[in-house]
Order: sequence, then C-alpha cells, then structure tokens
Amino acid sequence: MTHGGNIFEIQRKYNINKDNLVDFSSNINPLGIPESLKTLIIDKIAELECYPDIHYHQLKTIIAEYYSLDQKDIFVGNGAAQVIYDAIHAVKPKMSIILAPTFSEYERALVSHGSKVQYHYLEEKNNFNLREEDLIGAIDDSIDLVVLCNPNNPTSKLIKKDNIKKILDKCKKHNTFLMIDEAFMDFVEDDESYSMLEDYREYNNLIIVRAFTKFYGIPGLRLGFGISRNEKIIASVSENTIPWSLNTFAGYFGQVLLSEKEYVEKTYNWLREEKKRFVKKLAEIEGITVYIPSVNFILIKIVKENVDVDILKERLLKENILIRDCSNFNGLSKKFFRIAIKDPILNDRFVDSLIKAMDYSLEDKYK
Amino acid sequence: MTHGGNIFEIQRKYNINKDNLVDFSSNINPLGIPESLKTLIIDKIAELECYPDIHYHQLKTIIAEYYSLDQKDIFVGNGAAQVIYDAIHAVKPKMSIILAPTFSEYERALVSHGSKVQYHYLEEKNNFNLREEDLIGAIDDSIDLVVLCNPNNPTSKLIKKDNIKKILDKCKKHNTFLMIDEAFMDFVEDDESYSMLEDYREYNNLIIVRAFTKFYGIPGLRLGFGISRNEKIIASVSENTIPWSLNTFAGYFGQVLLSEKEYVEKTYNWLREEKKRFVKKLAEIEGITVYIPSVNFILIKIVKENVDVDILKERLLKENILIRDCSNFNGLSKKFFRIAIKDPILNDRFVDSLIKAMDYSLEDKYK
Repeated sequence: MTHGGNIFEIQRKYNINKDNLVDFSSNINPLGIPESLKTLIIDKIAELECYPDIHYHQLKTIIAEYYSLDQKDIFVGNGAAQVIYDAIHAVKPKMSIILAPTFSEYERALVSHGSKVQYHYLEEKNNFNLREEDLIGAIDDSIDLVVLCNPNNPTSKLIKKDNIKKILDKCKKHNTFLMIDEAFMDFVEDDESYSMLEDYREYNNLIIVRAFTKFYGIPGLRLGFGISRNEKIIASVSENTIPWSLNTFAGYFGQVLLSEKEYVEKTYNWLREEKKRFVKKLAEIEGITVYIPSVNFILIKIVKENVDVDILKERLLKENILIRDCSNFNGLSKKFFRIAIKDPILNDRFVDSLIKAMDYSLEDKYK
Repeated sequence: MTHGGNIFEIQRKYNINKDNLVDFSSNINPLGIPESLKTLIIDKIAELECYPDIHYHQLKTIIAEYYSLDQKDIFVGNGAAQVIYDAIHAVKPKMSIILAPTFSEYERALVSHGSKVQYHYLEEKNNFNLREEDLIGAIDDSIDLVVLCNPNNPTSKLIKKDNIKKILDKCKKHNTFLMIDEAFMDFVEDDESYSMLEDYREYNNLIIVRAFTKFYGIPGLRLGFGISRNEKIIASVSENTIPWSLNTFAGYFGQVLLSEKEYVEKTYNWLREEKKRFVKKLAEIEGITVYIPSVNFILIKIVKENVDVDILKERLLKENILIRDCSNFNGLSKKFFRIAIKDPILNDRFVDSLIKAMDYSLEDKYK
C-alpha cells in the first residue's frame, strides 16, 4: 500500500523528524481539526469504557439531516476505505471498470473481493478529464460495477452531474452498479452541479461514498459513510460489516457537523482565494505543467528533461517538504506528482523550494 | 447483530438515560481506562490531522516486546472484530467448526466469507467445558478451520494448552487451521497454562486473536491484534486489510502498554478477590446455577420455573441494571444470562437486585 501522508515511514526511512515535515503529499484541510472536535474528544474520553452504539443511530440521524438524505439509506465505516470495501463486498462484482489514474484502493478492494478490473484511461491530451461517451461505450452486460472518483484523485478533475446521469442510465440497462467516491466533494462550493447526493433516490444502481477525513482535517479519526437507495445493498452491508467499526469519538462526530458552519465558510474562503493564487504562482515555474485543480490538491507534470519525481522528491525532502510521487498511479509516470494546497505561507515556501529543486545548477547542493 | 454493551439501544428502547445504567452486560475492566491513555489522547489530538502510520510500526514493535513475539508475525485491527474478519478472509475456509455456545461474530464472519459452519456443542452436563477428544474426533479433511475462544465467551471456561496442542496436531494432519480468540486471556494470571502465545512459533496452522478492549476497558478505542507464524496468512492479511484500520489514538496505544504495570497488578488483585467473593454470594441465591468463571464474567442459569431471562432482564432494568440475555447464543436458552464482575459495591447491588427480581411475591412491584 503506497499512499500520500505516510510521514511515519518517511521519518523511519530518511531519519527526518515527522513534526518538522511539511506534508504536501496528504490532501487535508490546512485549517486543522475543528475546535468543537477537540472539546468533544476531551468530554468523551471516559466513554471509551463503553461499546459505541453498534448502529451509530445519532450520527446517521445528523448526517441524514445535514445532507438531506434518508437515514435508512446511510451506512458508516472506519474511514471511506471501509465504506469502499463494504460496498464492494455487497455488490460482489466479477468484472469492474475503474479509471486510470485514480485512487488505488478501489482496485485493491476489488481484487480482494474477487473482481477482475478493466481500466478506463483518462488521457493527458484531455487534461485527464473524463469523456463520458467513451466510458459509456465500454459498459455492457459483462460489467458489474463502474467506480468513479469525483473529483478524481490525483487529477483533481470533476465530472458533471449531467454526465454521471448518462453513465447511470447506461449502467441501468446492463444491471451495472455505479459507485462514486465523493470524498473531496465537500470542498466543491457549487457541488449541486457535480454531486449525486441530491438525486441519489432516483437510482437503484448507485452507491455514493463520502468522507469527513479531508474536509475536516481528521484522517486520524477514521470516519466515512456510504449512501444507496438499493435496499439489498444496505441490507448486505449491514449483515456483513465488521461490528463497532467507528470508535467512540467518530461516533459522536455529528455534533461537530452541526456546530462548525463557520469552519465550512472559512474553508471555502481560503480555498477560493488560495487555489487561484497558488496555481498562478506555480504556473509561472519553468519545467512543469500544472493541471487546473477543482479542489484542494493539484496534479503536476515535470516537463523538463533529466528531472523526474525521484530527484524532485529527494531534493524537496532536504527542505523538509514531502510531495506525493504519482508514478505508482496506473496511467501516470515518473514525471507526475501531486501536492495539497495549504496556507499562503507554506504554499509560498513550496514555490520557492520547487524553483530551487528544478534548477540543474543547484545539483551540487543536493549531493 | 445482538451483543452485550448496547446501552445506546437500551436508552432508545426503554427511555433510560444510559449514564444511569449499570452495565453488567459488557465484560469490561471496572478499573476504567488507564490514566496514561487519557494523557495520551489529550497530547495527540492535533495529530488527528495526519494519517496514522499505515504499518503501525511503533505499536507492533511494542506489542512484540511486551508479549515476546516476533514483530513480523503480528497484524493489527480495528478491534478484535476486524482481526477475526481479516484472519478468516486470509484462510478462506469452505467448512469450519465453531463452538456452541460461543461469541457470535465467528459465525457471522465465516458466513460473510462463504464458509459453511458446523457446531461443536459444549454440554451443560460438563459445565460447558470443552472435551477435546470429542472435538478432535470431528476434525477431518473436510474441515478448513476450527475456531476456539479461550476463555470461551459466554461460558468463561478455559481450555488447557496441552489440550489445544492435541487439537493443533490433529488439525495439522488434515491441513486445518486453528484460530483461537484469546480476547480475555490478559485477565488470566496463570496464562502460561492456557495461552498459545509462548508456543505459537511451533505451529504453522495457528492464528491467535487478542484484544486490549476488555482488559484495558477501552471498547470505544477499537484495537486488537492477530499473531500467526504462517507467512502466507500474514501476507494475505497485509494485502487485503482495509488501510489505516486503527485511529491515531489506538496507533499510540503501545505507550500505554509500557506504562501501566500497576494497572495490571491492580486488575489482578481486584479480580482474584472479587471473583471469589461475588461468586460465593451469587451461589447462595436460590433459583440460579452459577458456572464457576475463569475470568471477569459469569454465565448463570435460571433454574426456577416461571422465571426466564426476559422477565429478569425487564425487572433488573427497572433497577437500572443491564444483563446479557444469552438466549440468542446457539446452545443456550431463555434460561441463561451473563454478567460482568464489577467492583464490590456494584456487585453487592447486583446481588440484592437479583434476589428481589427472582422473587415471585414481588411480581406486583414490577407491573
């Protein structure tokens, strides 16, 4: 398993104290964890002595209200990762289509549950945008499940809801399920044009995966949820999921959701301004192509000869900066990396460090 | 899923504030969570912003030292529940033997992974002790996996290591795996006569499941681990497990393990004294049979006519006491329930309440 955010491994491998690392490899909201979560954790420490509610009733009630869903259609998991695994276990696909490049856990979960995988390659010439008509052409009776990631990781590209509906209609004709991972959708201000949350009730072959991990800056808490109108899917997840999958604190996260409207606004304000500013600065750097991001992370291609991500990663680590090497994404190469958008000071530091790291003449410095 | 400790459900169903409930249904150390865990959680709140170490290297290192295991043989999970699921996914059994009565999650996990299940009934006339020769007789080439729980839940009965070795030898002849859930073994002072931890290296067909849940009073933290010398099992778990399965706090639990020697001593002292005292008081109550427990929970049979666990549970709930109805354990009936051993004051309160609840003449009181 190779993912971003593996600061513990970097610490072991390079002997860099993880607390000194600036982790651009993990796409987490730089506002940090909400204050109300800190209070909640301190309040609920003694409750670790009790089993969490095995049905997570309160949490599901609040999620249903917050996102205007029906509570019976919701299931929760120990991070979006478990939601993905549980959904795939319920669908039991034999043949699935996934995007390339995309988040690697879909393939891992599919293979683990006995599904074969076909790749639908996103093309560099289209800036890695999905051409829905191509994907629709690939769906036939042999396909049990199509997995989309919207916005897609690591490309940071969105798929419009209208196009998703066309894909869903084609899927329906072939008894094919569509699973859409919307783990980063909370960062999208005009999400009603992209998210299927509002329209999920119309589709019996749709499963949506969501997470609080990225938006609320809590990858260490482990909390995701799934939505499906399909009663068999919900029943199967309920029958097969590992019990008590959320820890006590995650089980109470609904309270944070209700009290952090300001955090949401602050996040929107930061991302709206800083995405524009940071991308502009990055675009001025010679030797890289910046793919315009839709959310809080950016895919970048190195277009300079003799520089690849191995070199860049090593050089940036010497400046205590960690980037996400994207060479292990199917469909990408040693020329690609991904970074998170952070606060202006850290982003400026990144720009300066990247300019230096891209410069051949500094080769001696890095020896 | 019906388990003990479902205080949230009781709160919803009976409109009793869960904080007023005395929960004898969940077998948790009454000493409460260790002080060092409270400190650790407060210290590490900010670290929720980082992904936990995907390999949980520090935790595994400490577990290996603490229990004298080889680190490479350890895998961790989101509670013993995930360890059980991951182990079964790795073994991929088609036919398995489980005890009856026993913890219900083995069967659930087995069925979820496509295994058929045979029950090996523990007999009331033997006080629900396992007769290993009977079990050995049932193992043949058709059996892929045998699951034991030692001490067994809900009977609180131990199986001697010498007998387990005989079972393992028979399993070996038939290429059968043995999974032993030792979730309550930390409560056993002379565990070297029962636990397979010391001898696990000798058996390639053995998987041991352990948990910190019960001993350290932390069912809300979610933390268990598995041990196997079989490299294929370890590799399969590593390939198939859900990533980041432990939350940040659970990932640091090793630090608690190292600093809580006094907690362990206190627990032994409490259990040694209180088990004897509580069982003696219970044994004096008319109309019940108390099965002598090996650890911190007790199986009890109602031998009075016209009283069953439904009546008793309702009556005790009126005293804000929750017991574990054992009628849904295969091999038991409406006459059985399980209680945890708590501190002397609560145990005495339980004895008084049980005496009253068993009394017919008080029927009016409960109407």
